[in-house]
Amino acid sequence: MTETPKTPLSRQELDVFERWWRAANYLSVGQIYLMANPLLRERLTLEHTKPRLLGHWGTTPGLNFLWLHLSRIIREQNRDILFVAGPGHGAPGVVASTYMEGTYSEYFPEVTRDEAGIGRLFKQFSFPGGIPSHAAATTPGSIHEGGELGYSLSHAYGAAFDHPDLVVACVIGDGEAETGPLAASWHSNKFLNPTRDGAVLPILHLNGYKIANPTVLARIPKNELEALLRGYGHAPIFVEGDDPETMHQAMATAMDQAFAAISEIQNATRAGDAPSRPCWPMIVLRSPKGWTGPKTVDGLKTEGFWRAHQVPVADLAKGDHLAVLDDWLRSYKPEELFDEQGGLCADIAALAPKGEKRMSASPYANGGLLRRPLRLPDYAMHAVAVSGPGQATAEATRILGGWLRDVMAANRDQANFRVLSPDENNSNRLNAVLEVTDRAWEAVRYDYDDHLAPDGRVMEILSEHTCQGWLEGYLLTGRHGFFSCYEAFIHIVDSMVNQHAKWLKTSREVPWRQTISSLNYLITSHVWRQDHNGFSHQDPGFLNHIATKKADIARIYLPPDANTLLHVADHCLRTRDVINVIVAGKQPDLQWLDMDAAISHCSKGLGIWEWASNDRGEEPDAVIACAGDVPTLEALAAVKILREQMPDLKLRFVNVVDLMALQSPEQHPHGLPGETFDALFTLDKPVIFAFHGYPSLIHTLIYKRANASNFHVHGYREEGTTTTPFDMTVLNHLDRFHLVSNIVRRVPRFAARTAYVEQSVRDKLVQHTRYVREHGKDMPEISEWRWE
Amino acid sequence: MTETPKTPLSRQELDVFERWWRAANYLSVGQIYLMANPLLRERLTLEHTKPRLLGHWGTTPGLNFLWLHLSRIIREQNRDILFVAGPGHGAPGVVASTYMEGTYSEYFPEVTRDEAGIGRLFKQFSFPGGIPSHAAATTPGSIHEGGELGYSLSHAYGAAFDHPDLVVACVIGDGEAETGPLAASWHSNKFLNPTRDGAVLPILHLNGYKIANPTVLARIPKNELEALLRGYGHAPIFVEGDDPETMHQAMATAMDQAFAAISEIQNATRAGDAPSRPCWPMIVLRSPKGWTGPKTVDGLKTEGFWRAHQVPVADLAKGDHLAVLDDWLRSYKPEELFDEQGGLCADIAALAPKGEKRMSASPYANGGLLRRPLRLPDYAMHAVAVSGPGQATAEATRILGGWLRDVMAANRDQANFRVLSPDENNSNRLNAVLEVTDRAWEAVRYDYDDHLAPDGRVMEILSEHTCQGWLEGYLLTGRHGFFSCYEAFIHIVDSMVNQHAKWLKTSREVPWRQTISSLNYLITSHVWRQDHNGFSHQDPGFLNHIATKKADIARIYLPPDANTLLHVADHCLRTRDVINVIVAGKQPDLQWLDMDAAISHCSKGLGIWEWASNDRGEEPDAVIACAGDVPTLEALAAVKILREQMPDLKLRFVNVVDLMALQSPEQHPHGLPGETFDALFTLDKPVIFAFHGYPSLIHTLIYKRANASNFHVHGYREEGTTTTPFDMTVLNHLDRFHLVSNIVRRVPRFAARTAYVEQSVRDKLVQHTRYVREHGKDMPEISEWRWE
Repeated sequence: MTETPKTPLSRQELDVFERWWRAANYLSVGQIYLMANPLLRERLTLEHTKPRLLGHWGTTPGLNFLWLHLSRIIREQNRDILFVAGPGHGAPGVVASTYMEGTYSEYFPEVTRDEAGIGRLFKQFSFPGGIPSHAAATTPGSIHEGGELGYSLSHAYGAAFDHPDLVVACVIGDGEAETGPLAASWHSNKFLNPTRDGAVLPILHLNGYKIANPTVLARIPKNELEALLRGYGHAPIFVEGDDPETMHQAMATAMDQAFAAISEIQNATRAGDAPSRPCWPMIVLRSPKGWTGPKTVDGLKTEGFWRAHQVPVADLAKGDHLAVLDDWLRSYKPEELFDEQGGLCADIAALAPKGEKRMSASPYANGGLLRRPLRLPDYAMHAVAVSGPGQATAEATRILGGWLRDVMAANRDQANFRVLSPDENNSNRLNAVLEVTDRAWEAVRYDYDDHLAPDGRVMEILSEHTCQGWLEGYLLTGRHGFFSCYEAFIHIVDSMVNQHAKWLKTSREVPWRQTISSLNYLITSHVWRQDHNGFSHQDPGFLNHIATKKADIARIYLPPDANTLLHVADHCLRTRDVINVIVAGKQPDLQWLDMDAAISHCSKGLGIWEWASNDRGEEPDAVIACAGDVPTLEALAAVKILREQMPDLKLRFVNVVDLMALQSPEQHPHGLPGETFDALFTLDKPVIFAFHGYPSLIHTLIYKRANASNFHVHGYREEGTTTTPFDMTVLNHLDRFHLVSNIVRRVPRFAARTAYVEQSVRDKLVQHTRYVREHGKDMPEISEWRWE
Repeated sequence: MTETPKTPLSRQELDVFERWWRAANYLSVGQIYLMANPLLRERLTLEHTKPRLLGHWGTTPGLNFLWLHLSRIIREQNRDILFVAGPGHGAPGVVASTYMEGTYSEYFPEVTRDEAGIGRLFKQFSFPGGIPSHAAATTPGSIHEGGELGYSLSHAYGAAFDHPDLVVACVIGDGEAETGPLAASWHSNKFLNPTRDGAVLPILHLNGYKIANPTVLARIPKNELEALLRGYGHAPIFVEGDDPETMHQAMATAMDQAFAAISEIQNATRAGDAPSRPCWPMIVLRSPKGWTGPKTVDGLKTEGFWRAHQVPVADLAKGDHLAVLDDWLRSYKPEELFDEQGGLCADIAALAPKGEKRMSASPYANGGLLRRPLRLPDYAMHAVAVSGPGQATAEATRILGGWLRDVMAANRDQANFRVLSPDENNSNRLNAVLEVTDRAWEAVRYDYDDHLAPDGRVMEILSEHTCQGWLEGYLLTGRHGFFSCYEAFIHIVDSMVNQHAKWLKTSREVPWRQTISSLNYLITSHVWRQDHNGFSHQDPGFLNHIATKKADIARIYLPPDANTLLHVADHCLRTRDVINVIVAGKQPDLQWLDMDAAISHCSKGLGIWEWASNDRGEEPDAVIACAGDVPTLEALAAVKILREQMPDLKLRFVNVVDLMALQSPEQHPHGLPGETFDALFTLDKPVIFAFHGYPSLIHTLIYKRANASNFHVHGYREEGTTTTPFDMTVLNHLDRFHLVSNIVRRVPRFAARTAYVEQSVRDKLVQHTRYVREHGKDMPEISEWRWE
């Protein structure tokens, strides 16, 4: 590494740097406090201040400091840099910097670059009808919902993948660094290819405190911290102190050093000249929390302490508080920063890079601008030949894997598609993808390794959080992805999904945000086929979770077989700005629909399967409905039993693929019109519904429907263990026998024969239980069951 | 540290160690494969093997190896050691070891210590009606649901807190080590007090592979790994290799060294002789995955590779597979391990510690045995004086904090109560607790620090995962705790809650498991008062999540004010084996019930507030129901508007504290009987329900009720931002004006006046929006609203 000078900034540069930073800090404090008198040209009074003081000062000066120094690198080296603010509650800083770059006024023309505009900038912050207190989709230059901590670094890596010219500068707060998702994501550097991908520059911002506690990483000895960061695979550069001038020189030195190291690594690997995983630089900025803010308030330590976290001086009517604020604001000397009209002084403004090089205007931060549609090969080429219902067997996800392989191949030159999973790609039977790519792996490899390569496009780490974060970062910067996961463990990212859903909802309301690719999940190894791993692996509740999200955002599909899965997956990869959850099994299962039937069925979202019904267009005695592959099988098996035992019972068979179609159109854009729903499910006949997940979800979706009170749902009732697949359905009363029993009890005109049928299915259940406990497998009549 | 010999085991010891390990491995393989011929006394045939081969071999020999070596320490040093198997899928090993110790037969008398018993041991594993494939509540010696990875180390710390004589040996798989929760929990050592607490010995088991990939930590250079572990604050001892004899000596040496270091640290700190945080030992075991299993199968590398993860040789009818299995099993020479009757040879059996010292029989692993009830001071002493509805103002959680302080003080000498939060104790206004204890903090402290001490009982780290894991470990080993959390971010532990709920359900079915204290959550800083942090902090969906859990386990309480909160909290801390979720606000709010009324109301779970109703025992025109503090306020404000504008409208006011009472008694043990429900909510009158969470949850709970279709629920509709508190309710239509509008539209006999009332509330809403956007605060008539 080349030696860099310790004082890279000239006296003149230092002065203007210092003034930029003062301006950014001034504009930050102003946002938190002021709703009038923005440039303090009048004496500050209570009337100028906001009635409710909301915002986070503590991390803000550090963010402003870093923004300035990254901008210098952009100017001097003509870099593309994306800024990820882990401490997203430092939004006053991010907003201030983007305003100083001019972008803010370009995106929000009413926030002009003059005194009136600064007034609007201040007032709107954390104000009704204004902008949120955290970095969000409304924040120029941001791809990162800044409210929930933990995801900045995985987002940063997701953004850097396949963007070789990009450096993602990721500020990680020392509070955030305590979270699990962040702690795991440090190892992302084992999955980044210096040739194909960009670089991530982690900047650990140790300001020492969280809301009301010190942070762990600020309170361990420096040698321990350095060991930790080296253990993560980084070469840390420390910038520590509080004297602005010294710190500007130190940070400029550190930045020069870090970017030189990045260039050196990239040049070496891109020249084919680097045998082993590089040791990437990172920066540790140790500076006081609330740096440049009030040292004490009411005699209590404030700067450099947790009291500076949010609003360091509140209750402005109290004691000397207003004077403290006045002194603090004036300490930045606004008169040296803004001209008569309130414009930023020209020499300061000149520090901003130009056009799209400004971090606030980076197209990488508005990924829809960069997004190229995915090339989707014809999925029908992968159709399973189904000569009639139940006349073929296939593993649905393996079939899908074949198509995904072709998708992967078709987009290789676009370099904009990745498949992710927490070490489950093959377990989920998407193996075929590995025929055209490998698993990304930048760490040590041996000759007997299986499809590991630095340029692989299958991303596997045993961290759902990291996979999710990578994918979000990848999508938010304009690419496409597909995440497969065991059903039970996708709950691990519930909270991340919430934040992404919130981002999507908000971004739809921001006119300059371009739409991005949807977040696509394949939920497999699902509850009904976790008979081998047992109870801990059995949980279908992610569907309930998704169903609470805004209807515009949430989509749930339960294709019953391979051909329907192909159609649904193709559809999902074409959508934008939604979250698609596809549930499908991976085990060899009977196939029901040929490709044409699958397309027609999925296009409607749900419909009658005539070949399984015998109501011949008349009003049936009962409807048997199903959603999900195993429920569909059991429902069909129930139909077959009833055909034999009660051939005159008129049954209608309805299969549901698009679960949200069950909601009313006012509730969900996919909602089936009332008359269509009623025509399918009748107005008053019993509907026995075999459902993949918790029964309550179906009741939640249909409660507005006319026939709601006649729905009887069978699904997962939190009963399970390591057992046989069919026994899983029996334990939860989703099996054919329980379905039959429930149907016959609901149809009064067959009352005379009900007892007989019920007894026969009860006998079957006893026989089943005895058999599995002796033989450890299902009875042949179950495992070899066929529709025809 | 004293020098330990490199060959602590004598020749004789080595021999019997080696035979114990062979026996444990034999019994492990037998569980995966055999359902007859358990000691291979006949020629092995397909008929002796299970029809479905389920289980995980890869990690198992390592677990067996560690169990043996920890037992040696117990015998030689008379230690109490608890074994936490992070790779809980290695259950065949844990079960084998507990069987060899005799505990298994004590707990499950049908699994005798002879050939027939071994036969039953083998057959039951991963077999219908048998035991699960992962360590679970059915596993003797386990406190750790072994299915989902990531929580072993935080569980271990939770178990060690306040158990000064205990060492928790925590095996961490290198797969698990990639997860976020595990990565975060390494820093738990900054919260463990060597004097008051026991010790945790992390054992990182690097077997190199996950399901189908190498692991990160096995593929970084050793110096990087060592730096990482030192950065976590540990002194790692490496045991690496595959030759059993060498490895036995190396592990015995490492164990001696680690336990000597633990003693040295504890002796020094307990003698008051250790100024700074100690550097705790840990062990790194690098051994082949599937160690001692088949080297290759079908010519493919198996031992020491991911192919050994589950069942290394399957399809036993194929090729030489049965012979491979036969060779493998016989390589352990069962004839040298078991006597004629199938009993473990006496010299091998003698390696097990005695009685409760056996890790399989440790009372620490069956926490209910150790649990002492919490001393609960009279909460009525903390009652807010409420002379009439709305005649007092209080911050509910601050009042609760006062009582929790007394609980803390009353149980200090029992050392069995801790309060946890992710850096939010004070933000959640439980500050009073710090009057009698501090925040646990073992890292560097400064004189200006605020309530940090090594022996604090308030546990704060910015990781919901770590807090949750600590608390689970603490409860599972017989203690009590209280977890307060921002509502939106409790979703971070959704999946952990699932696993704990599964543990509780299963443990109820295991006769020898004693009941443990409930998992108690205070969910505060809730959706309606996250007007300052904005959209990212607004999510009430944890209630939906909990509601999917088994009814026996799930409890949700929404006390409307401080006195009801006190009663509910007291109740929750008395319960066992359930998950209690309490939702309560922290802001100054009007109080409704005096203590007597609060007790009477909460005891019923829900009920009519006569003083807010005017139906005078007659059938009302409409019912206005509410659950949650903000909804209660808005519902009462709606009542007041209606009293003024439609005084002859007969309204019944129902407040719900115990949400599960809304379900039917068949669905939930708290479910209200149908006739009581119908008497409260009528059979056909409109019920306008103001609810804290997503409206769908109420519909989910009441769908079996007669009047279900007349429930109209107002709640969170995923609309929010940084705004005023009242504006949050307006954005989501939970406010008084929307409630009034909905009620008047539902009562036909007032149709003539409906339009007038609707217009008046619409005007109010317009006025509100205009006001908040100008002034940044709610109108005085809102913020100063009073009931009377």
